[in-house]
Amino acid sequence: MGHLIQKSTGEAEPFNIGKLAMSLERAGAAPDIAWKIAESVAREKMMTSKDIHKATLHASIRHDRKLAIRYNLKQALMDLGPSGYPFEKYMAALMRASGYKASNNQIIDGKCVRHEIDIYLEKPEENIVGIAECKFRNQPGSKIDVKVPLYFDSRFRDVIHTFDKQFGVGKRTYEGWLITNTKFTGDAIAYGKCAGLHLLGWTFPTENSIARLIERHGLIPVTALSSLTFRQKRQLLDRGIVMCTELSNHIDFLRDIGVGRATVMKIQEDIGSLCRHR
Amino acid sequence: MGHLIQKSTGEAEPFNIGKLAMSLERAGAAPDIAWKIAESVAREKMMTSKDIHKATLHASIRHDRKLAIRYNLKQALMDLGPSGYPFEKYMAALMRASGYKASNNQIIDGKCVRHEIDIYLEKPEENIVGIAECKFRNQPGSKIDVKVPLYFDSRFRDVIHTFDKQFGVGKRTYEGWLITNTKFTGDAIAYGKCAGLHLLGWTFPTENSIARLIERHGLIPVTALSSLTFRQKRQLLDRGIVMCTELSNHIDFLRDIGVGRATVMKIQEDIGSLCRHR
Repeated sequence: MGHLIQKSTGEAEPFNIGKLAMSLERAGAAPDIAWKIAESVAREKMMTSKDIHKATLHASIRHDRKLAIRYNLKQALMDLGPSGYPFEKYMAALMRASGYKASNNQIIDGKCVRHEIDIYLEKPEENIVGIAECKFRNQPGSKIDVKVPLYFDSRFRDVIHTFDKQFGVGKRTYEGWLITNTKFTGDAIAYGKCAGLHLLGWTFPTENSIARLIERHGLIPVTALSSLTFRQKRQLLDRGIVMCTELSNHIDFLRDIGVGRATVMKIQEDIGSLCRHR
Repeated sequence: MGHLIQKSTGEAEPFNIGKLAMSLERAGAAPDIAWKIAESVAREKMMTSKDIHKATLHASIRHDRKLAIRYNLKQALMDLGPSGYPFEKYMAALMRASGYKASNNQIIDGKCVRHEIDIYLEKPEENIVGIAECKFRNQPGSKIDVKVPLYFDSRFRDVIHTFDKQFGVGKRTYEGWLITNTKFTGDAIAYGKCAGLHLLGWTFPTENSIARLIERHGLIPVTALSSLTFRQKRQLLDRGIVMCTELSNHIDFLRDIGVGRATVMKIQEDIGSLCRHR
Protein backbone atom coordinates (compact mmCIF):
# COMPACT_ATOMS: atom_id res chain seq x y z
CA MET A 1 0.00 0.00 0.00
CA GLY A 2 1.08 3.59 -0.44
CA HIS A 3 -0.04 6.92 -1.93
CA LEU A 4 -3.37 7.33 -3.78
CA ILE A 5 -3.55 6.84 -7.53
CA GLN A 6 -6.32 7.91 -9.89
CA LYS A 7 -7.97 5.19 -11.96
CA SER A 8 -9.32 5.68 -15.49
CA THR A 9 -12.84 5.71 -13.99
CA GLY A 10 -11.90 8.82 -11.99
CA GLU A 11 -11.94 6.91 -8.68
CA ALA A 12 -8.88 6.96 -6.42
CA GLU A 13 -7.30 3.90 -4.80
CA PRO A 14 -4.11 3.33 -2.80
CA PHE A 15 -1.15 2.17 -4.90
CA ASN A 16 -0.77 -1.55 -4.25
CA ILE A 17 2.64 -2.95 -5.07
CA GLY A 18 1.47 -6.54 -4.48
CA LYS A 19 -1.35 -6.14 -7.03
CA LEU A 20 1.10 -4.80 -9.62
CA ALA A 21 3.54 -7.66 -9.00
CA MET A 22 0.67 -10.15 -9.32
CA SER A 23 -0.40 -8.72 -12.67
CA LEU A 24 3.17 -9.11 -13.90
CA GLU A 25 3.28 -12.71 -12.66
CA ARG A 26 0.01 -13.37 -14.50
CA ALA A 27 1.71 -11.98 -17.63
CA GLY A 28 4.39 -14.64 -17.14
CA ALA A 29 7.10 -12.97 -15.03
CA ALA A 30 8.96 -15.05 -12.44
CA PRO A 31 8.04 -13.86 -8.90
CA ASP A 32 11.45 -12.25 -8.26
CA ILE A 33 11.35 -10.36 -11.59
CA ALA A 34 7.74 -9.29 -10.97
CA TRP A 35 8.68 -7.81 -7.57
CA LYS A 36 11.79 -6.16 -8.95
CA ILE A 37 9.77 -4.40 -11.67
CA ALA A 38 6.94 -3.46 -9.28
CA GLU A 39 9.44 -1.97 -6.81
CA SER A 40 11.12 0.09 -9.52
CA VAL A 41 7.71 1.46 -10.56
CA ALA A 42 6.76 2.18 -6.91
CA ARG A 43 9.85 4.37 -6.52
CA GLU A 44 8.54 6.69 -9.28
CA LYS A 45 5.44 7.86 -7.29
CA MET A 46 2.99 7.77 -10.18
CA MET A 47 -0.31 9.68 -9.93
CA THR A 48 -2.60 7.81 -12.36
CA SER A 49 -3.09 4.14 -13.20
CA LYS A 50 -2.25 5.04 -16.82
CA ASP A 51 1.19 6.37 -15.75
CA ILE A 52 1.79 3.21 -13.73
CA HIS A 53 0.87 1.04 -16.70
CA LYS A 54 3.28 2.96 -18.93
CA ALA A 55 6.13 2.83 -16.41
CA THR A 56 5.56 -0.89 -15.82
CA LEU A 57 5.57 -1.50 -19.54
CA HIS A 58 8.90 0.29 -19.97
CA ALA A 59 10.43 -1.53 -16.99
CA SER A 60 9.15 -4.86 -18.38
CA ILE A 61 10.57 -4.24 -21.85
CA ARG A 62 14.00 -3.78 -20.26
CA HIS A 63 13.69 -7.25 -18.70
CA ASP A 64 11.85 -9.23 -21.36
CA ARG A 65 10.01 -8.10 -24.53
CA LYS A 66 7.63 -11.09 -24.39
CA LEU A 67 6.65 -10.19 -20.85
CA ALA A 68 5.91 -6.62 -21.93
CA ILE A 69 3.67 -7.83 -24.75
CA ARG A 70 1.65 -10.02 -22.41
CA TYR A 71 1.47 -7.26 -19.79
CA ASN A 72 0.11 -4.90 -22.47
CA LEU A 73 -2.67 -7.21 -23.73
CA LYS A 74 -5.57 -5.17 -22.34
CA GLN A 75 -4.36 -2.12 -24.28
CA ALA A 76 -3.73 -4.32 -27.33
CA LEU A 77 -7.40 -5.36 -27.24
CA MET A 78 -8.48 -1.70 -27.06
CA ASP A 79 -6.26 -1.05 -30.08
CA LEU A 80 -8.41 -3.48 -32.09
CA GLY A 81 -10.88 -0.56 -32.49
CA PRO A 82 -12.33 1.84 -33.38
CA SER A 83 -14.83 -0.49 -35.11
CA GLY A 84 -16.03 -3.55 -33.20
CA TYR A 85 -15.41 -6.05 -35.99
CA PRO A 86 -11.75 -7.02 -35.30
CA PHE A 87 -12.73 -7.74 -31.67
CA GLU A 88 -15.59 -9.99 -32.85
CA LYS A 89 -13.14 -11.84 -35.11
CA TYR A 90 -10.62 -12.09 -32.28
CA MET A 91 -13.21 -13.44 -29.84
CA ALA A 92 -14.38 -16.04 -32.39
CA ALA A 93 -10.75 -17.27 -32.51
CA LEU A 94 -10.60 -17.38 -28.71
CA MET A 95 -13.87 -19.34 -28.54
CA ARG A 96 -12.46 -21.75 -31.15
CA ALA A 97 -9.42 -22.25 -28.92
CA SER A 98 -11.90 -23.03 -26.10
CA GLY A 99 -13.41 -25.89 -28.12
CA TYR A 100 -16.26 -24.22 -30.02
CA LYS A 101 -16.93 -23.93 -33.72
CA ALA A 102 -17.37 -20.20 -34.19
CA SER A 103 -18.36 -18.05 -37.18
CA ASN A 104 -18.89 -14.30 -37.41
CA ASN A 105 -21.79 -12.24 -38.73
CA GLN A 106 -24.62 -14.69 -39.16
CA ILE A 107 -28.18 -13.52 -39.81
CA ILE A 108 -30.84 -15.46 -37.90
CA ASP A 109 -34.59 -14.88 -38.16
CA GLY A 110 -36.01 -14.91 -34.66
CA LYS A 111 -39.67 -15.39 -33.79
CA CYS A 112 -40.26 -11.62 -34.02
CA VAL A 113 -37.43 -9.99 -35.96
CA ARG A 114 -34.22 -10.75 -37.86
CA HIS A 115 -30.98 -10.61 -35.86
CA GLU A 116 -27.37 -10.00 -36.83
CA ILE A 117 -25.39 -12.38 -34.69
CA ASP A 118 -21.77 -11.38 -33.92
CA ILE A 119 -20.62 -14.98 -33.32
CA TYR A 120 -22.53 -18.18 -33.98
CA LEU A 121 -21.23 -20.98 -31.73
CA GLU A 122 -21.44 -24.76 -31.82
CA LYS A 123 -19.98 -27.61 -29.81
CA PRO A 124 -21.37 -30.55 -31.80
CA GLU A 125 -20.06 -33.34 -29.55
CA GLU A 126 -21.81 -31.76 -26.54
CA ASN A 127 -24.98 -30.81 -28.48
CA ILE A 128 -24.40 -27.13 -27.70
CA VAL A 129 -25.54 -24.27 -29.96
CA GLY A 130 -25.07 -20.65 -29.03
CA ILE A 131 -24.90 -17.02 -30.02
CA ALA A 132 -22.51 -14.39 -28.75
CA GLU A 133 -22.91 -10.61 -28.72
CA CYS A 134 -19.67 -8.61 -28.52
CA LYS A 135 -19.51 -5.15 -26.93
CA PHE A 136 -16.24 -3.53 -27.86
CA ARG A 137 -15.22 -0.37 -26.03
CA ASN A 138 -12.05 1.61 -26.59
CA GLN A 139 -12.59 3.91 -23.60
CA PRO A 140 -10.83 2.53 -20.52
CA GLY A 141 -13.16 2.59 -17.53
CA SER A 142 -16.41 2.37 -19.52
CA LYS A 143 -18.72 -0.35 -18.26
CA ILE A 144 -21.46 -2.49 -19.79
CA ASP A 145 -24.66 -1.63 -17.92
CA VAL A 146 -27.73 -3.73 -17.19
CA LYS A 147 -29.57 -2.64 -20.35
CA VAL A 148 -27.16 -4.68 -22.47
CA PRO A 149 -27.85 -8.14 -20.90
CA LEU A 150 -31.56 -7.15 -20.74
CA TYR A 151 -31.69 -6.54 -24.48
CA PHE A 152 -29.44 -9.48 -25.31
CA ASP A 153 -31.66 -11.80 -23.25
CA SER A 154 -34.69 -10.88 -25.42
CA ARG A 155 -32.61 -11.36 -28.56
CA PHE A 156 -31.44 -14.76 -27.27
CA ARG A 157 -35.03 -15.84 -26.48
CA ASP A 158 -36.17 -14.69 -29.91
CA VAL A 159 -33.43 -16.72 -31.62
CA ILE A 160 -34.05 -19.80 -29.43
CA HIS A 161 -37.49 -19.98 -31.02
CA THR A 162 -35.76 -20.55 -34.38
CA PHE A 163 -33.28 -23.05 -32.89
CA ASP A 164 -36.18 -25.05 -31.41
CA LYS A 165 -37.72 -25.25 -34.89
CA GLN A 166 -34.40 -26.12 -36.52
CA PHE A 167 -33.08 -28.71 -34.04
CA GLY A 168 -36.27 -29.83 -32.26
CA VAL A 169 -37.28 -28.80 -28.75
CA GLY A 170 -34.87 -30.14 -26.11
CA LYS A 171 -32.38 -31.52 -28.66
CA ARG A 172 -29.69 -28.92 -28.00
CA THR A 173 -28.39 -26.92 -25.07
CA TYR A 174 -28.50 -23.23 -25.96
CA GLU A 175 -25.84 -20.80 -24.80
CA GLY A 176 -26.08 -17.01 -24.94
CA TRP A 177 -22.72 -15.26 -24.53
CA LEU A 178 -22.28 -11.59 -23.83
CA ILE A 179 -18.67 -10.62 -24.35
CA THR A 180 -16.82 -7.37 -23.72
CA ASN A 181 -13.19 -6.26 -23.56
CA THR A 182 -14.16 -4.05 -20.60
CA LYS A 183 -16.21 -4.57 -17.40
CA PHE A 184 -19.82 -5.24 -16.48
CA THR A 185 -21.70 -3.28 -13.81
CA GLY A 186 -22.84 -5.24 -10.75
CA ASP A 187 -26.43 -5.12 -12.01
CA ALA A 188 -25.40 -6.41 -15.43
CA ILE A 189 -23.69 -9.39 -13.76
CA ALA A 190 -26.68 -9.97 -11.46
CA TYR A 191 -29.12 -9.98 -14.38
CA GLY A 192 -26.84 -12.08 -16.59
CA LYS A 193 -26.40 -14.78 -13.93
CA CYS A 194 -30.10 -14.79 -13.04
CA ALA A 195 -31.09 -15.09 -16.71
CA GLY A 196 -28.60 -17.89 -17.35
CA LEU A 197 -26.44 -15.93 -19.76
CA HIS A 198 -22.69 -16.48 -20.08
CA LEU A 199 -20.92 -13.21 -19.36
CA LEU A 200 -17.31 -12.86 -20.42
CA GLY A 201 -15.28 -9.73 -19.72
CA TRP A 202 -11.64 -8.72 -19.48
CA THR A 203 -11.40 -10.02 -15.88
CA PHE A 204 -14.80 -11.74 -15.55
CA PRO A 205 -15.40 -14.47 -14.50
CA THR A 206 -12.15 -14.57 -12.51
CA GLU A 207 -10.94 -18.02 -13.54
CA ASN A 208 -12.22 -17.93 -17.13
CA SER A 209 -11.97 -14.26 -18.09
CA ILE A 210 -10.68 -13.08 -21.47
CA ALA A 211 -7.33 -12.30 -19.77
CA ARG A 212 -7.12 -15.90 -18.49
CA LEU A 213 -8.26 -17.42 -21.80
CA ILE A 214 -5.55 -15.48 -23.66
CA GLU A 215 -2.94 -16.70 -21.12
CA ARG A 216 -4.23 -20.26 -21.41
CA HIS A 217 -4.34 -20.43 -25.21
CA GLY A 218 -1.59 -17.94 -26.04
CA LEU A 219 -3.65 -16.19 -28.72
CA ILE A 220 -2.02 -12.80 -29.21
CA PRO A 221 -3.65 -10.06 -31.34
CA VAL A 222 -1.48 -8.28 -33.93
CA THR A 223 -2.01 -5.06 -31.99
CA ALA A 224 0.20 -6.50 -29.21
CA LEU A 225 3.31 -6.60 -31.39
CA SER A 226 5.45 -3.78 -30.01
CA SER A 227 7.62 -3.55 -33.15
CA LEU A 228 4.70 -2.32 -35.29
CA THR A 229 3.54 1.31 -35.35
CA PHE A 230 -0.07 2.24 -34.56
CA ARG A 231 -0.65 2.98 -38.25
CA GLN A 232 0.79 -0.36 -39.39
CA LYS A 233 -1.44 -2.21 -36.91
CA ARG A 234 -4.47 -0.35 -38.28
CA GLN A 235 -3.50 -1.32 -41.84
CA LEU A 236 -3.29 -4.99 -40.86
CA LEU A 237 -6.73 -4.82 -39.18
CA ASP A 238 -8.14 -3.17 -42.32
CA ARG A 239 -6.91 -6.20 -44.30
CA GLY A 240 -8.68 -8.52 -41.89
CA ILE A 241 -5.57 -9.69 -40.03
CA VAL A 242 -6.35 -9.78 -36.31
CA MET A 243 -4.30 -12.63 -34.80
CA CYS A 244 -0.55 -12.65 -34.86
CA THR A 245 -0.71 -16.30 -35.98
CA GLU A 246 -2.47 -15.11 -39.16
CA LEU A 247 0.49 -12.85 -39.80
CA SER A 248 2.93 -15.72 -40.17
CA ASN A 249 1.14 -16.70 -43.40
CA HIS A 250 1.14 -13.12 -44.65
CA ILE A 251 4.63 -11.79 -44.04
CA ASP A 252 4.45 -10.17 -47.52
CA PHE A 253 1.71 -7.85 -46.16
CA LEU A 254 4.23 -6.44 -43.69
CA ARG A 255 6.53 -5.48 -46.54
CA ASP A 256 3.55 -3.98 -48.48
CA ILE A 257 2.79 -1.61 -45.59
CA GLY A 258 6.39 -0.48 -45.35
CA VAL A 259 7.78 -2.53 -42.47
CA GLY A 260 11.58 -2.69 -42.78
CA ARG A 261 13.51 -5.95 -43.15
CA ALA A 262 15.04 -5.90 -39.63
CA THR A 263 11.61 -5.29 -38.05
CA VAL A 264 10.05 -8.11 -40.10
CA MET A 265 12.67 -10.47 -38.65
CA LYS A 266 11.97 -9.22 -35.11
CA ILE A 267 8.23 -9.78 -35.65
CA GLN A 268 8.82 -13.27 -37.04
CA GLU A 269 10.81 -14.01 -33.91
CA ASP A 270 7.95 -12.68 -31.70
CA ILE A 271 5.44 -14.75 -33.63
CA GLY A 272 7.58 -17.84 -33.17
CA SER A 273 8.05 -17.38 -29.44
CA LEU A 274 4.74 -15.78 -28.42
CA CYS A 275 1.94 -16.58 -30.79
CA ARG A 276 2.13 -20.34 -31.14
CA HIS A 277 3.46 -21.47 -27.79
CA ARG A 278 3.62 -19.64 -24.49
CA MET B 1 -47.16 18.23 -55.07
CA GLY B 2 -44.34 20.59 -55.97
CA HIS B 3 -40.61 21.15 -55.46
CA LEU B 4 -38.44 18.92 -53.23
CA ILE B 5 -37.99 19.72 -49.56
CA GLN B 6 -35.37 18.36 -47.19
CA LYS B 7 -36.63 16.60 -44.05
CA SER B 8 -34.83 16.67 -40.68
CA THR B 9 -33.67 13.09 -41.38
CA GLY B 10 -31.77 14.37 -44.44
CA GLU B 11 -34.17 12.67 -46.88
CA ALA B 12 -35.90 14.70 -49.58
CA GLU B 13 -39.61 14.55 -50.43
CA PRO B 14 -41.88 16.59 -52.70
CA PHE B 15 -43.67 19.46 -50.99
CA ASN B 16 -47.25 18.31 -50.45
CA ILE B 17 -49.74 21.11 -49.90
CA GLY B 18 -52.54 18.65 -49.04
CA LYS B 19 -50.45 17.07 -46.28
CA LEU B 20 -49.72 20.50 -44.79
CA ALA B 21 -53.40 21.51 -44.89
CA MET B 22 -54.31 18.19 -43.24
CA SER B 23 -51.84 18.77 -40.37
CA LEU B 24 -53.44 22.20 -39.82
CA GLU B 25 -56.92 20.65 -39.84
CA ARG B 26 -55.73 18.12 -37.27
CA ALA B 27 -54.53 21.07 -35.16
CA GLY B 28 -58.11 22.38 -35.27
CA ALA B 29 -58.23 24.71 -38.30
CA ALA B 30 -61.41 24.83 -40.40
CA PRO B 31 -60.73 23.33 -43.88
CA ASP B 32 -60.89 26.68 -45.70
CA ILE B 33 -58.47 28.30 -43.20
CA ALA B 34 -56.15 25.28 -43.40
CA TRP B 35 -55.97 25.55 -47.21
CA LYS B 36 -55.55 29.33 -47.10
CA ILE B 37 -52.55 28.99 -44.74
CA ALA B 38 -51.07 26.06 -46.69
CA GLU B 39 -51.33 28.01 -49.96
CA SER B 40 -49.64 31.07 -48.44
CA VAL B 41 -46.77 28.82 -47.27
CA ALA B 42 -46.56 27.09 -50.68
CA ARG B 43 -45.97 30.45 -52.38
CA GLU B 44 -42.78 30.96 -50.35
CA LYS B 45 -40.90 27.97 -51.92
CA MET B 46 -39.28 26.67 -48.74
CA MET B 47 -36.28 24.34 -48.93
CA THR B 48 -36.46 22.41 -45.63
CA SER B 49 -39.30 20.98 -43.56
CA LYS B 50 -38.08 23.16 -40.67
CA ASP B 51 -38.58 26.32 -42.77
CA ILE B 52 -42.05 25.13 -43.73
CA HIS B 53 -42.92 24.51 -40.10
CA LYS B 54 -41.75 27.99 -39.13
CA ALA B 55 -43.61 29.71 -41.98
CA THR B 56 -46.78 27.73 -41.20
CA LEU B 57 -46.51 28.69 -37.55
CA HIS B 58 -46.22 32.39 -38.44
CA ALA B 59 -49.12 32.22 -40.88
CA SER B 60 -51.20 30.36 -38.27
CA ILE B 61 -50.50 32.93 -35.56
CA ARG B 62 -51.90 35.62 -37.86
CA HIS B 63 -55.15 33.65 -38.11
CA ASP B 64 -55.56 32.18 -34.64
CA ARG B 65 -53.08 31.91 -31.74
CA LYS B 66 -54.73 28.73 -30.41
CA LEU B 67 -54.31 27.06 -33.79
CA ALA B 68 -50.61 27.97 -33.78
CA ILE B 69 -50.13 26.44 -30.32
CA ARG B 70 -51.72 23.18 -31.36
CA TYR B 71 -49.80 23.11 -34.65
CA ASN B 72 -46.55 23.56 -32.68
CA LEU B 73 -47.16 20.71 -30.18
CA LYS B 74 -44.47 18.37 -31.52
CA GLN B 75 -41.87 21.10 -31.01
CA ALA B 76 -43.39 21.91 -27.58
CA LEU B 77 -42.80 18.29 -26.56
CA MET B 78 -39.16 18.49 -27.72
CA ASP B 79 -38.85 21.67 -25.63
CA LEU B 80 -39.64 19.60 -22.51
CA GLY B 81 -35.94 18.54 -22.61
CA PRO B 82 -33.02 18.35 -22.24
CA SER B 83 -33.67 15.90 -19.36
CA GLY B 84 -36.28 13.20 -19.84
CA TYR B 85 -38.12 13.80 -16.58
CA PRO B 86 -40.66 16.49 -17.65
CA PHE B 87 -41.67 14.22 -20.56
CA GLU B 88 -42.22 11.32 -18.11
CA LYS B 89 -44.38 13.60 -15.96
CA TYR B 90 -46.26 14.81 -19.01
CA MET B 91 -46.92 11.27 -20.23
CA ALA B 92 -48.17 10.21 -16.79
CA ALA B 93 -50.73 13.04 -17.05
CA LEU B 94 -51.73 11.90 -20.54
CA MET B 95 -52.14 8.30 -19.33
CA ARG B 96 -54.29 9.59 -16.46
CA ALA B 97 -56.47 11.38 -18.99
CA SER B 98 -56.74 8.01 -20.80
CA GLY B 99 -58.19 6.37 -17.68
CA TYR B 100 -55.11 5.06 -15.86
CA LYS B 101 -53.78 5.77 -12.42
CA ALA B 102 -50.19 6.78 -13.12
CA SER B 103 -47.24 7.60 -10.87
CA ASN B 104 -43.66 8.46 -11.78
CA ASN B 105 -40.34 7.03 -10.61
CA GLN B 106 -41.25 3.84 -8.80
CA ILE B 107 -38.60 1.32 -7.83
CA ILE B 108 -39.62 -2.31 -8.37
CA ASP B 109 -37.50 -5.34 -7.50
CA GLY B 110 -37.73 -7.77 -10.39
CA LYS B 111 -36.83 -11.45 -10.25
CA CYS B 112 -33.22 -10.66 -11.13
CA VAL B 113 -32.52 -6.97 -10.50
CA ARG B 114 -34.11 -3.76 -9.20
CA HIS B 115 -35.74 -1.50 -11.80
CA GLU B 116 -36.47 2.22 -11.90
CA ILE B 117 -39.86 2.48 -13.51
CA ASP B 118 -40.64 5.74 -15.34
CA ILE B 119 -44.43 5.35 -14.96
CA TYR B 120 -46.31 2.80 -12.86
CA LEU B 121 -49.82 2.29 -14.29
CA GLU B 122 -53.04 0.88 -12.90
CA LYS B 123 -56.61 0.56 -14.13
CA PRO B 124 -58.20 -0.99 -11.06
CA GLU B 125 -61.70 -1.51 -12.47
CA GLU B 126 -60.23 -3.50 -15.39
CA ASN B 127 -57.65 -5.35 -13.24
CA ILE B 128 -54.82 -3.88 -15.28
CA VAL B 129 -51.34 -3.20 -13.89
CA GLY B 130 -48.54 -1.88 -16.04
CA ILE B 131 -45.20 -0.19 -16.36
CA ALA B 132 -44.14 2.39 -18.92
CA GLU B 133 -40.66 3.30 -20.12
CA CYS B 134 -40.26 6.75 -21.67
CA LYS B 135 -37.65 7.53 -24.30
CA PHE B 136 -37.36 11.27 -24.69
CA ARG B 137 -35.41 12.64 -27.67
CA ASN B 138 -34.85 16.28 -28.50
CA GLN B 139 -33.27 15.60 -31.87
CA PRO B 140 -35.90 15.70 -34.62
CA GLY B 141 -35.53 12.69 -36.91
CA SER B 142 -33.94 10.38 -34.31
CA LYS B 143 -35.63 6.99 -34.04
CA ILE B 144 -36.04 4.36 -31.33
CA ASP B 145 -34.38 1.19 -32.64
CA VAL B 146 -35.11 -2.47 -31.94
CA LYS B 147 -32.70 -2.69 -29.00
CA VAL B 148 -35.03 -0.55 -26.90
CA PRO B 149 -38.12 -2.82 -27.04
CA LEU B 150 -35.76 -5.82 -26.70
CA TYR B 151 -34.35 -4.52 -23.42
CA PHE B 152 -37.69 -3.23 -22.20
CA ASP B 153 -39.26 -6.64 -22.85
CA SER B 154 -36.73 -8.30 -20.49
CA ARG B 155 -37.32 -5.59 -17.89
CA PHE B 156 -41.09 -6.12 -18.21
CA ARG B 157 -40.73 -9.91 -17.80
CA ASP B 158 -38.49 -9.41 -14.78
CA VAL B 159 -41.05 -7.10 -13.14
CA ILE B 160 -43.98 -9.40 -14.02
CA HIS B 161 -42.38 -11.98 -11.75
CA THR B 162 -42.86 -9.53 -8.85
CA PHE B 163 -46.42 -8.66 -9.92
CA ASP B 164 -47.30 -12.37 -10.00
CA LYS B 165 -46.09 -12.68 -6.40
CA GLN B 166 -47.87 -9.49 -5.35
CA PHE B 167 -51.25 -9.98 -7.04
CA GLY B 168 -51.30 -13.75 -7.64
CA VAL B 169 -50.74 -15.47 -10.98
CA GLY B 170 -53.50 -14.66 -13.48
CA LYS B 171 -55.19 -12.09 -11.22
CA ARG B 172 -54.15 -9.05 -13.27
CA THR B 173 -53.58 -8.20 -16.89
CA TYR B 174 -50.07 -6.77 -17.27
CA GLU B 175 -49.29 -4.00 -19.72
CA GLY B 176 -45.81 -2.89 -20.80
CA TRP B 177 -45.76 0.52 -22.47
CA LEU B 178 -42.83 1.90 -24.44
CA ILE B 179 -43.37 5.60 -25.05
CA THR B 180 -41.41 8.10 -27.11
CA ASN B 181 -41.97 11.63 -28.41
CA THR B 182 -40.28 10.56 -31.64
CA LYS B 183 -40.59 7.53 -33.97
CA PHE B 184 -39.88 3.80 -33.81
CA THR B 185 -37.95 1.91 -36.51
CA GLY B 186 -39.88 -0.76 -38.42
CA ASP B 187 -38.00 -3.46 -36.52
CA ALA B 188 -38.82 -1.87 -33.18
CA ILE B 189 -42.53 -1.89 -34.08
CA ALA B 190 -42.30 -5.49 -35.37
CA TYR B 191 -40.65 -6.70 -32.16
CA GLY B 192 -42.97 -4.65 -29.92
CA LYS B 193 -46.11 -6.06 -31.58
CA CYS B 194 -44.79 -9.61 -31.58
CA ALA B 195 -43.84 -9.39 -27.89
CA GLY B 196 -47.22 -7.91 -26.93
CA LEU B 197 -45.83 -4.55 -25.83
CA HIS B 198 -47.82 -1.32 -26.17
CA LEU B 199 -45.82 1.10 -28.31
CA LEU B 200 -46.77 4.77 -28.22
CA GLY B 201 -45.01 7.38 -30.33
CA TRP B 202 -45.67 10.85 -31.66
CA THR B 203 -47.72 9.46 -34.59
CA PHE B 204 -47.89 5.77 -33.60
CA PRO B 205 -50.29 3.99 -33.52
CA THR B 206 -52.17 6.15 -36.03
CA GLU B 207 -55.49 6.41 -34.20
CA ASN B 208 -54.09 6.50 -30.65
CA SER B 209 -50.75 8.26 -31.04
CA ILE B 210 -49.49 10.91 -28.61
CA ALA B 211 -50.57 13.58 -31.14
CA ARG B 212 -54.10 12.13 -31.18
CA LEU B 213 -54.26 11.71 -27.39
CA ILE B 214 -53.29 15.36 -26.90
CA GLU B 215 -56.00 16.41 -29.39
CA ARG B 216 -58.54 14.19 -27.66
CA HIS B 217 -57.79 15.26 -24.10
CA GLY B 218 -56.57 18.81 -24.73
CA LEU B 219 -53.57 18.43 -22.43
CA ILE B 220 -51.16 21.15 -23.43
CA PRO B 221 -47.59 21.33 -22.03
CA VAL B 222 -46.36 24.69 -20.69
CA THR B 223 -43.73 24.68 -23.44
CA ALA B 224 -46.54 25.25 -25.97
CA LEU B 225 -47.44 28.68 -24.58
CA SER B 226 -46.17 31.08 -27.25
CA SER B 227 -46.18 34.08 -24.89
CA LEU B 228 -43.39 32.60 -22.73
CA THR B 229 -39.70 32.83 -23.63
CA PHE B 230 -37.55 29.69 -23.90
CA ARG B 231 -35.83 30.64 -20.62
CA GLN B 232 -39.13 31.15 -18.77
CA LYS B 233 -40.37 27.75 -19.98
CA ARG B 234 -37.17 26.14 -18.69
CA GLN B 235 -37.65 27.83 -15.29
CA LEU B 236 -41.20 26.45 -15.02
CA LEU B 237 -39.95 22.93 -15.90
CA ASP B 238 -37.23 23.27 -13.25
CA ARG B 239 -39.99 23.97 -10.70
CA GLY B 240 -41.81 20.82 -11.78
CA ILE B 241 -44.56 22.57 -13.76
CA VAL B 242 -45.12 20.66 -16.98
CA MET B 243 -48.83 21.01 -17.85
CA CYS B 244 -50.40 24.36 -18.60
CA THR B 245 -53.31 23.33 -16.33
CA GLU B 246 -50.82 23.20 -13.43
CA LEU B 247 -49.92 26.79 -14.21
CA SER B 248 -53.41 28.12 -13.41
CA ASN B 249 -52.80 27.23 -9.74
CA HIS B 250 -49.35 28.84 -9.78
CA ILE B 251 -49.80 32.18 -11.53
CA ASP B 252 -47.51 33.69 -8.83
CA PHE B 253 -44.62 31.61 -10.29
CA LEU B 254 -45.00 33.52 -13.54
CA ARG B 255 -44.49 36.82 -11.72
CA ASP B 256 -41.50 35.30 -9.83
CA ILE B 257 -39.72 34.50 -13.08
CA GLY B 258 -40.30 37.97 -14.44
CA VAL B 259 -43.31 37.58 -16.73
CA GLY B 260 -44.97 40.98 -17.19
CA ARG B 261 -48.57 41.70 -16.20
CA ALA B 262 -49.93 41.93 -19.75
CA THR B 263 -48.31 38.61 -20.67
CA VAL B 264 -49.69 36.94 -17.55
CA MET B 265 -53.19 37.97 -18.65
CA LYS B 266 -52.56 36.65 -22.16
CA ILE B 267 -51.37 33.33 -20.68
CA GLN B 268 -54.39 33.12 -18.37
CA GLU B 269 -56.57 33.59 -21.43
CA ASP B 270 -54.68 30.82 -23.28
CA ILE B 271 -55.03 28.52 -20.29
CA GLY B 272 -58.75 29.20 -20.14
CA SER B 273 -59.37 28.56 -23.82
CA LEU B 274 -56.78 25.86 -24.60
CA CYS B 275 -55.79 23.87 -21.56
CA ARG B 276 -59.10 22.84 -20.06
CA HIS B 277 -61.42 22.54 -23.05
CA ARG B 278 -60.65 22.24 -26.73
